[in-house]
Amino acid sequence: MDDRLLTTGLADEIEFLTARARAVGTAHANASLAPLDLRVRSYSVLALAASGVDPTQRELAEFLSLDASQIVALVDGLESRGLVVRTQDARDRRSNAISATPAGRALAAKAAVIVRRAETESLSGLTSAERDRLRELLKKAAFTG
Amino acid sequence: MDDRLLTTGLADEIEFLTARARAVGTAHANASLAPLDLRVRSYSVLALAASGVDPTQRELAEFLSLDASQIVALVDGLESRGLVVRTQDARDRRSNAISATPAGRALAAKAAVIVRRAETESLSGLTSAERDRLRELLKKAAFTG
Repeated sequence: MDDRLLTTGLADEIEFLTARARAVGTAHANASLAPLDLRVRSYSVLALAASGVDPTQRELAEFLSLDASQIVALVDGLESRGLVVRTQDARDRRSNAISATPAGRALAAKAAVIVRRAETESLSGLTSAERDRLRELLKKAAFTG
Repeated sequence: MDDRLLTTGLADEIEFLTARARAVGTAHANASLAPLDLRVRSYSVLALAASGVDPTQRELAEFLSLDASQIVALVDGLESRGLVVRTQDARDRRSNAISATPAGRALAAKAAVIVRRAETESLSGLTSAERDRLRELLKKAAFTG
């Protein structure tokens, strides 16, 4: 790492630091998920589909900060692998609810373990207490504003 | 916000939370920078070019977690507006160093104020002490691993 740029004002901006932390974390998580033929985005959709909540595509897009077209492509990919199915949403007949198949739930469980491990590895410079505090503050940051 | 999805395991993963916090922060910062005809990425390059460090394109790419081709396009855009110039790097004659013109430095200073304000607005759910703690933890997360 080049220390020269760390002395700049940009290196103290939360916007920049969040983007960089995310790039570092995503690269490591993508590499860790590769043996399961998943990436962070497809894993996120699968994890939500396997959560028992049966989200609609619109809920997935909003929650994951992705476009509707990106969600459709991700769901298509998981559906073609037999990991999720589209069913009619019980609360809104015009919407599809996405739920994981038994194979999808099994893969989601495996992937969740891998992502947790990747998180600890990516954040090896933080203590366990610091990781928990970061999680708590990011949760506030991600769900206000 | 849909509380249903907040109960899922994904909502506790730092990888997911960082991606979401970044999406929220970037959208707000981009909107705030629009009057200056800047976006977060072009602003980041301009801020580093105006910092006095005169980074090379390679340093910019590494620091901002962007591809070389993205950096070239961003520098081209700023150069065509007279905000930065490419000069021969004093430490490595084969590299270009990017430095801001007086107009670039003036715009970078304006933009930095806007980005700081956008940061406070985006993180309105956090106290000032929590923002500082988040900054500190993100810095550790962004520069280890």
